[in-house]
Amino acid sequence: MNYPKTILNLIESFKKLPGIGEKTAERLALSTLNMDDDTIEIFSNSLKEVKNKIKKCEKCGSYTEEEICDICKSETRDHSTMCVVEESKNVIQFEKVGTFNGVYHVLGGLISPLDGVNPENINLNTLKKRIKEENIKEVILAIKPSIEGETTALYISKMLEDENIKITKIAHGIPMGADIDYIDPLTLEIAMEDRTTIS
Amino acid sequence: MNYPKTILNLIESFKKLPGIGEKTAERLALSTLNMDDDTIEIFSNSLKEVKNKIKKCEKCGSYTEEEICDICKSETRDHSTMCVVEESKNVIQFEKVGTFNGVYHVLGGLISPLDGVNPENINLNTLKKRIKEENIKEVILAIKPSIEGETTALYISKMLEDENIKITKIAHGIPMGADIDYIDPLTLEIAMEDRTTIS
Repeated sequence: MNYPKTILNLIESFKKLPGIGEKTAERLALSTLNMDDDTIEIFSNSLKEVKNKIKKCEKCGSYTEEEICDICKSETRDHSTMCVVEESKNVIQFEKVGTFNGVYHVLGGLISPLDGVNPENINLNTLKKRIKEENIKEVILAIKPSIEGETTALYISKMLEDENIKITKIAHGIPMGADIDYIDPLTLEIAMEDRTTIS
Repeated sequence: MNYPKTILNLIESFKKLPGIGEKTAERLALSTLNMDDDTIEIFSNSLKEVKNKIKKCEKCGSYTEEEICDICKSETRDHSTMCVVEESKNVIQFEKVGTFNGVYHVLGGLISPLDGVNPENINLNTLKKRIKEENIKEVILAIKPSIEGETTALYISKMLEDENIKITKIAHGIPMGADIDYIDPLTLEIAMEDRTTIS
């Protein structure tokens, strides 16, 4: 004896989500039995809608329901400054901060030959094309400081070295409010190297 | 700027699940974008199906797709021995062990006046009715040893004291493989009290 088949199917579906194991999937599936009909209807429909409606912006690669996303279409944004990020999610993170008023470019991954991700597997061709066509003056690399991140940043700066544009990267260092006791040696090294003059 | 509306709706749906916060909901919602169409179709349909098809067995109260569950309908099971559990989930746990061959009764909660759960809010009326009608010889209480569990167990034994049946409860003590160093004092006390003679 086990759960009825419909419950088992739902448990299997939950198990396909990242970080959800057998026990959690079971708990989540059973919890849906206590949800009201409308909530389930919305949940069920949202799953399908996300899959059907969400596309990648043809320009920058971030998630949108149209061909071109709102940021790329915006007339009030600075289209000469481009922030290059790994994932669509990072766009939202910067937008929540709200201080950057340029446009984005989503790579959709980082160069990692060991994992079979080569330069041609991420959105670098479109990046090069955009630099030529869109009159970009500054490219800001906002990529995480890992081996893959550094490799990708290096590759992009090499790729763009003949273009007449400024290439910058966001600052790495000690996060605000962090206690220096708990910062790893590599971050401390970078923080020391990238020190800024205050007077 | 934020995620497109369909993604935000899906994040909201995931947030309604127990133990899923903002960040996790976001991660889960975005992960569905990488699932293939069939997987999403099955996930979406399973959610609705569970809600529509799953009922509580009219006899024992455990989850089933029919009026009466397979265990209550079974002709090979011992219908004179009844195991009383808190949740439908517990039925599956005992079934996975596979040694119990009787029938179940799911209370759907434990008596907890502080949380507004009184005896009439859980399946106690049907329990009494079943005891009278089904010629039960032994009721095994398999309820967790918490304050609510003990209260419920006590209530059931009082309720059934005039019936001519044996009432037992599953053993509490030190779990198999556990190191005594790590067992709480209350469990040790119970384990000592409920000691069994070996020779």
